[in-house]
Amino acid sequence: MSQEQAMGGEGGAGGEENMAAWLMGIKNLQIQPYHLPPLGPHDVKVRVKTLGICGSDVHHFKTMRCASFIVKKPMVIGHECAGIIEEVGSKVKTLAVGERVALEPGISCRRCHLCKEGRYNLCPEMKFFGSPPTNGALANKVVHPAYLCYKLPDNVSLEEGAMCEPLSVGVHACRRANISTDTNVLIIGSGPIGLVTLLAARAFGAPRVIVVDVDEHRLSFAKRLGADEVVEVSTDMQLVGQELTQIKDTAGCNIHVTFDCVGYNKTISTALNATHPGGRVCLIGLASTEMTVPLMAGAAREIDVMGIFRYRNTWPLCIDLLRTGKIDVKPLITHRFGFTQGEVEQAFETSASGGKAIKVMFNL
Amino acid sequence: MSQEQAMGGEGGAGGEENMAAWLMGIKNLQIQPYHLPPLGPHDVKVRVKTLGICGSDVHHFKTMRCASFIVKKPMVIGHECAGIIEEVGSKVKTLAVGERVALEPGISCRRCHLCKEGRYNLCPEMKFFGSPPTNGALANKVVHPAYLCYKLPDNVSLEEGAMCEPLSVGVHACRRANISTDTNVLIIGSGPIGLVTLLAARAFGAPRVIVVDVDEHRLSFAKRLGADEVVEVSTDMQLVGQELTQIKDTAGCNIHVTFDCVGYNKTISTALNATHPGGRVCLIGLASTEMTVPLMAGAAREIDVMGIFRYRNTWPLCIDLLRTGKIDVKPLITHRFGFTQGEVEQAFETSASGGKAIKVMFNL
Amino acid sequence: MSQEQAMGGEGGAGGEENMAAWLMGIKNLQIQPYHLPPLGPHDVKVRVKTLGICGSDVHHFKTMRCASFIVKKPMVIGHECAGIIEEVGSKVKTLAVGERVALEPGISCRRCHLCKEGRYNLCPEMKFFGSPPTNGALANKVVHPAYLCYKLPDNVSLEEGAMCEPLSVGVHACRRANISTDTNVLIIGSGPIGLVTLLAARAFGAPRVIVVDVDEHRLSFAKRLGADEVVEVSTDMQLVGQELTQIKDTAGCNIHVTFDCVGYNKTISTALNATHPGGRVCLIGLASTEMTVPLMAGAAREIDVMGIFRYRNTWPLCIDLLRTGKIDVKPLITHRFGFTQGEVEQAFETSASGGKAIKVMFNL
Amino acid sequence: MSQEQAMGGEGGAGGEENMAAWLMGIKNLQIQPYHLPPLGPHDVKVRVKTLGICGSDVHHFKTMRCASFIVKKPMVIGHECAGIIEEVGSKVKTLAVGERVALEPGISCRRCHLCKEGRYNLCPEMKFFGSPPTNGALANKVVHPAYLCYKLPDNVSLEEGAMCEPLSVGVHACRRANISTDTNVLIIGSGPIGLVTLLAARAFGAPRVIVVDVDEHRLSFAKRLGADEVVEVSTDMQLVGQELTQIKDTAGCNIHVTFDCVGYNKTISTALNATHPGGRVCLIGLASTEMTVPLMAGAAREIDVMGIFRYRNTWPLCIDLLRTGKIDVKPLITHRFGFTQGEVEQAFETSASGGKAIKVMFNL
Repeated sequence: MSQEQAMGGEGGAGGEENMAAWLMGIKNLQIQPYHLPPLGPHDVKVRVKTLGICGSDVHHFKTMRCASFIVKKPMVIGHECAGIIEEVGSKVKTLAVGERVALEPGISCRRCHLCKEGRYNLCPEMKFFGSPPTNGALANKVVHPAYLCYKLPDNVSLEEGAMCEPLSVGVHACRRANISTDTNVLIIGSGPIGLVTLLAARAFGAPRVIVVDVDEHRLSFAKRLGADEVVEVSTDMQLVGQELTQIKDTAGCNIHVTFDCVGYNKTISTALNATHPGGRVCLIGLASTEMTVPLMAGAAREIDVMGIFRYRNTWPLCIDLLRTGKIDVKPLITHRFGFTQGEVEQAFETSASGGKAIKVMFNL
Repeated sequence: MSQEQAMGGEGGAGGEENMAAWLMGIKNLQIQPYHLPPLGPHDVKVRVKTLGICGSDVHHFKTMRCASFIVKKPMVIGHECAGIIEEVGSKVKTLAVGERVALEPGISCRRCHLCKEGRYNLCPEMKFFGSPPTNGALANKVVHPAYLCYKLPDNVSLEEGAMCEPLSVGVHACRRANISTDTNVLIIGSGPIGLVTLLAARAFGAPRVIVVDVDEHRLSFAKRLGADEVVEVSTDMQLVGQELTQIKDTAGCNIHVTFDCVGYNKTISTALNATHPGGRVCLIGLASTEMTVPLMAGAAREIDVMGIFRYRNTWPLCIDLLRTGKIDVKPLITHRFGFTQGEVEQAFETSASGGKAIKVMFNL
Repeated sequence: MSQEQAMGGEGGAGGEENMAAWLMGIKNLQIQPYHLPPLGPHDVKVRVKTLGICGSDVHHFKTMRCASFIVKKPMVIGHECAGIIEEVGSKVKTLAVGERVALEPGISCRRCHLCKEGRYNLCPEMKFFGSPPTNGALANKVVHPAYLCYKLPDNVSLEEGAMCEPLSVGVHACRRANISTDTNVLIIGSGPIGLVTLLAARAFGAPRVIVVDVDEHRLSFAKRLGADEVVEVSTDMQLVGQELTQIKDTAGCNIHVTFDCVGYNKTISTALNATHPGGRVCLIGLASTEMTVPLMAGAAREIDVMGIFRYRNTWPLCIDLLRTGKIDVKPLITHRFGFTQGEVEQAFETSASGGKAIKVMFNL
Repeated sequence: MSQEQAMGGEGGAGGEENMAAWLMGIKNLQIQPYHLPPLGPHDVKVRVKTLGICGSDVHHFKTMRCASFIVKKPMVIGHECAGIIEEVGSKVKTLAVGERVALEPGISCRRCHLCKEGRYNLCPEMKFFGSPPTNGALANKVVHPAYLCYKLPDNVSLEEGAMCEPLSVGVHACRRANISTDTNVLIIGSGPIGLVTLLAARAFGAPRVIVVDVDEHRLSFAKRLGADEVVEVSTDMQLVGQELTQIKDTAGCNIHVTFDCVGYNKTISTALNATHPGGRVCLIGLASTEMTVPLMAGAAREIDVMGIFRYRNTWPLCIDLLRTGKIDVKPLITHRFGFTQGEVEQAFETSASGGKAIKVMFNL
């Protein structure tokens, strides 16, 4: 409940001033005071130091909605963040003031059968930073449960800490799709999610990773990040068969798992047809709600189609992959902004414009 | 290779006359001689006693094709069969002349990586009774590898033996979907495949099985076979939401696995929306090659969509389920015919007409 | 923390008198007042109506210890219980006063990685009714988290509710060992745990279940409860080979999973040798800490040996199995006692004496 | 059956002379003629170029037995080999004369349920090079099924090809134990099998690998091959607790999987106690048939103990790992010998002496 506090004028927890970026309407972000709740015994108060902008934040910014979630009243935006512990609740033993932490943004109920079974990302009572009606984390300070704050090693920066959130999507997808040294991988889409999936697939040992996109610039980025091969495709549905041949020829191996990080008819069709019998297609990006797809092409070869919703239990692994250098997320951070009224809007516009921005990061 | 013999006039193996039902053209079946190959050291010769007609046989009969398989020259039809061993190859130790056996119809290469990994149903070199260009089993005799012929216990009839083939589809689907006493099941479609899936789901311990169909007669059949509840629906896409509510209310429990035994836009939409987060949708029937489906509805709740292609390693279990009475397939056999020119055509017409025929069986 | 209250003289929660059975020393149980804590917002207060005695309770009663757990100060005993909700915390929405519930006895931390991953039975911070130093449930009333109290359907009695605890051990074992209609089962030992494992294996669809024990009476009980075959064996290690032959002959099928509900050198040796290549041996009973076992016999045939520690997420399934009549635990309850000083001691002595007692149950 | 030919004097297949190393008695190896069988349609004839000596070969050499297998008549020894195709059977399409191949040494029946299910390494009819009564491969030429001969890429040498056999043990163990970037690994024993397991664990993405041995020299070898940390231990059972602390401290992380590549009471005890709750212990080395082990320590924390028997479906992955340089087996080859009467005996004596020999390789 800590994130459902009202906006207000006269100062926050402990009387100190806490400012946050409130989404007031379409493309209307205002830095205004944000009252924090009193600290629960198992909570910590975190001074937010870094926060990255996610595609869903941009959706909220541009349309006041994302998928079925609608912003009905002013809401603090943002959920990819890291910071420094400023205060710990009376029963917190695992964290101390001054420690640097990355924050997992979703608080599940921990009482329903999905939580008890360890699939807490599917909890129907989830309260998630910056997903309406729950306030987000683009603020000077937030209160959060200690068990969702993960200490950063000395050699992992606060920006990298914030990157654990998008990286978690790739890691969760690779776990669900059982990526290993036994699975060659095709990734469709080389936006931020395609790229973190690429990084995760490499870390999970995929011997061969091919990336497909319509944008040459993004593909060259993917190549630099470690893709074995890249294939530029079009948005023309007529070319799907021809491009499929090109993808298979470029791969030169059986493709055991395809990640569709886009979610159009054409990309799913490519995914289903490119994947080897008995393989898996993992849907991460879902641009369209309804799709016309050749499900038979996949089903008759026993290809499993699996969806990904956020992540679970990924922060410790992400942090370890960053600590050991198995994954380097720093090249993904292409733009940086401060936490002022002007910069906040500019940052969101930059992220929304697409172009060459991959990850836009705030330093508070 | 044993099944790729030519049609011929002057008698078969060992000089004896072997007759088979050859598909000569659309709706044109002719009983004519069928030369059997010499018996290999690991083969057996089986006198076919029972053979059931499958939906794919009817497709071949009516259109000379099924999915991507096209009948280009006369082919012996049929693949659901059982019979009596008439001769055994020199190295066959597990079977003896006179024994009653059910035949698994597909011969895989046993050399490719899919075969070696135990997923032989996906073998690209598969030779399958009555799937062009491989001859089928509606014949007096066939030659078949001994390791694909499974001895029937005394209390399992030859008709039940032939039923192991369609039952195998249900059993393979239940294994793939991991049906157990932990999974409530929704089955969409109560034709022959829906019904064997119902029988299999019950045998796999599903605590609650709901069956949905547009045909009241088939639903009452499903009820008699053991469905806990049945729901009659329409083919009207506009009613999908309303019917979904009705299905969920009737179920009165979380649905962990849905089997779509039909394969239309509407049925897959129902399947994806009816299934509980983290569950599975299993595609068995695939009426349409392309479908417009709300994949996002499933993916965002991490519902895995899995296809089924035939079966693997199912005969021993099917026979055991029949032997112990856990499954009774006899009620599914609604029509019986002999092996004469007139009856063969009549049998296929009966099966093709739909109506009240579930399984049409030959007794040779 | 609700279960770590001190014993005291002047009444419990809300001033009312709450009495409990305190274990004061070896074979010394005293009914004395038990102060309940104030009700937390997510807790319920339950009037305990039924409680069964478990082997571990008897261990505590006889030796003041069980495995590595030692009773160092007076402790309320007992953990298999059901009762009626008497009061609900301010945030409890799923339960109401007067409802009948079965209680899952272990409270995990819900913050460590094992809890978050859904393997909460392995939580190192677990507080478990009647496992020192946590007080148990043989009391008029207990306070417990609502999410660990499961509503009983009308046709499931409070005694059956208490039986969900031992049944959970069998259910968890069958889940871990992946029991299904594909797995023939051997159960070694037909005491209470062997018998609930038998009931669970049947409910999970095991086509054939063989039970082995040294006690003819217990074996005849197992037969009545649904074992296909029983085999009486000795404790003589010299006979292990001969008895193995007898077990295999009696089974007459491959044994895919063996549950050792005893845990001696001989029983594990039997388990490892009786199980088919690629199968599983599941250790439930662990009479000895160290065992001399032919691990090579199992390992060279790739038999996995898996341990079982309590259970997780089992109550909903247990209750459903009782509701639908797939499992009947009532025959296991062989003795009943009231909650008086004299009867409490007598009940524990009865349970400790072995003999024909299976489950000894209190009705409070 | 191709490997069950008799020893003979007057030349082999096609009249040419084929010589092999026959094990005639304890420490008695004789190079004598070896008649090859006629080439079956699916077979190839391979000129053996490299062959490594395995611990089981040494067992046969020193004792005429290994585990339950006994050498009762002269037998060609050896099974880790690679060579060049000299002739292909009439139906072989995947290989051509002159190609370099690595040989998988075991021919399973491909008809039993274990083969059909893909677990062919457990086939009871297995015929395995150099495992009595099947002749091995230390010969100029062997006849072998084409589907068990795997083409080597240009950048993988014939010595590396022969190393696919021991490497397969490590790869199969890592697959069975589900090694990934999520699993920290402890390896007990740094002999040849411990070392290939180390290489495989690294390739499967294990973030942290600790190796334990009693031999300082072998440990420094493990360190050079990529172990993060090594711990020197003793054979003194009294020190097991103290060394366990040392291992855990050195690891500095939860150990999710332990591979015991030795198989003594002490090593298994260490393995069970060092592994984190819910983890796995994988038995690869099995020095003792019977072991006295603290199974309860593992079982009560739900640690699965799994055995490894040879391997299945590993050659393609091994070759790919060598081709891409993810694994380098060359440092393991410490000694080389030619194929002459004197060198054969010397090679086996070198391998048997232990000391600094890791892998002893023949170049024929």
